[in-house]
Amino acid sequence: MNIVIQGLGEMGASLALILNQVADNHVIGIDINQNTLDYAIKHQIISESGSDLIMVADRADVIILATPINGIKESLKQLAGITLKPQVIVTDAGSTKNEILQVANKVLVDTAFIGGHAMAGTHKSGVAEANKDLYQQVPYFLIPNQVGKAYVERLKNIFKPLAADFTTIDVEAHDHLMAMISDVPHIAAFALMNTAVKQLGSFDNFGRYVAGGFTDTTRIAASDAKLWTDILLSNRESVLENNQALIDELQEINQTIADNDANKLQEMIQTAHDARQNLLSRKQHE
Amino acid sequence: MNIVIQGLGEMGASLALILNQVADNHVIGIDINQNTLDYAIKHQIISESGSDLIMVADRADVIILATPINGIKESLKQLAGITLKPQVIVTDAGSTKNEILQVANKVLVDTAFIGGHAMAGTHKSGVAEANKDLYQQVPYFLIPNQVGKAYVERLKNIFKPLAADFTTIDVEAHDHLMAMISDVPHIAAFALMNTAVKQLGSFDNFGRYVAGGFTDTTRIAASDAKLWTDILLSNRESVLENNQALIDELQEINQTIADNDANKLQEMIQTAHDARQNLLSRKQHE
Repeated sequence: MNIVIQGLGEMGASLALILNQVADNHVIGIDINQNTLDYAIKHQIISESGSDLIMVADRADVIILATPINGIKESLKQLAGITLKPQVIVTDAGSTKNEILQVANKVLVDTAFIGGHAMAGTHKSGVAEANKDLYQQVPYFLIPNQVGKAYVERLKNIFKPLAADFTTIDVEAHDHLMAMISDVPHIAAFALMNTAVKQLGSFDNFGRYVAGGFTDTTRIAASDAKLWTDILLSNRESVLENNQALIDELQEINQTIADNDANKLQEMIQTAHDARQNLLSRKQHE
Repeated sequence: MNIVIQGLGEMGASLALILNQVADNHVIGIDINQNTLDYAIKHQIISESGSDLIMVADRADVIILATPINGIKESLKQLAGITLKPQVIVTDAGSTKNEILQVANKVLVDTAFIGGHAMAGTHKSGVAEANKDLYQQVPYFLIPNQVGKAYVERLKNIFKPLAADFTTIDVEAHDHLMAMISDVPHIAAFALMNTAVKQLGSFDNFGRYVAGGFTDTTRIAASDAKLWTDILLSNRESVLENNQALIDELQEINQTIADNDANKLQEMIQTAHDARQNLLSRKQHE
């Protein structure tokens, strides 16, 4: 089958590398960078290259959009303007999903679209990071549109060589989950770091005193600012709700401390302790 | 010189072990547990043992109180009732200082008291954890009372074999610093964990999806509930102020996201990013 992959960064190139090893697959890579395409051909990451999605899309059985989010939205609109194979599956690799699903639902109503989000990827980027193990046992969310629902099993079968841990989910549940387990922890880390600087002055005043607790809790505050601005704003509604829930919890802890209510405070901490221990043993068990 | 150490847990026993290796020192260990004392004598952690601080305190040149905080306060009151050597230095090893300084200022007005707080210690406990390297390069705060100020250099000299990184600080600055770099990060971790459970249900619903960011940010939520209830309540004023500052920062981030103000959001994240990177390079440099 013909698999077209647009965007040969770490995520897209890894998908290409894995899928191109399957005998029946013919992977066509699309990228704006000719060096990237040359590299991908040379290393057999792809079997054919192109610079324009539209030129090859009508031959595709699967189309995977693995560019940044704005590029994905643009490509969806382009695909809506041409005739695709009737059984084609269009999927993507963006980490936030509501905007992409909105566009897909609007312009690709009669096509199977299955939004994809793999919780994989490193801080590295580029085709040279193509990694055949990138998706192994990684949570991989599938968010189908109305037509796509009937194609989920087929896509999972095509993606079997990834050895990912697939979960079919609706877009609201996906965004809510991501807000709580990824976006809000990032906000908490950003806020802790900024609060420390506001309360204590520059890190020269306190950097030498911090121990493992502060270091761990703020580690992801070193994440890329542009990337996280985009992520937080593109998942705005769920982020606002879950961040407000965190604020409410912090307020309640503060009130409990102000009330000097040792019993209630210890209960709240114990609840957190137990949940974190469960999480730990679960992750270790896996 | 005679050094009396009350409480041979990890902190006290490590102090004893290090100081007892100095030829001029005679370390007298006090503990309520006879097995602990026997172990300490057998392993030359101490040179003499006793079960009652008051029986040996009048021979002491240095008295180190290394029991839990309530025990330290009790011992300070006991010491106030007997005649100590005129040049004696009394110090302690409690991690929160305002209550201890209040008691010391009240009952030990004519004695040199220098509150001590080493940012050392592991999750282990007991005399068997005595470790001669425990304090090496560890931040070690010294908080003298009025009389104690003239004795700080002498205590640092006696403690030289610890190879700790001593900082003389007043109790308000110490408590403010601890609230921001240790207490509030713990509260944030407790609150994140509890919020996740409230928003997503039990960890069965979300545990398999969490990645490194959530795991790091909540790691210290697994801390002991009783211990942290005591710490947070004993540093109440500073904790409330710094936790409120964190809440204010989170509110501002939420408002910025609600306003869809990408420029301001990216600036806030960049500030956090830069501070965290500085912290990182500082720690790596050390």
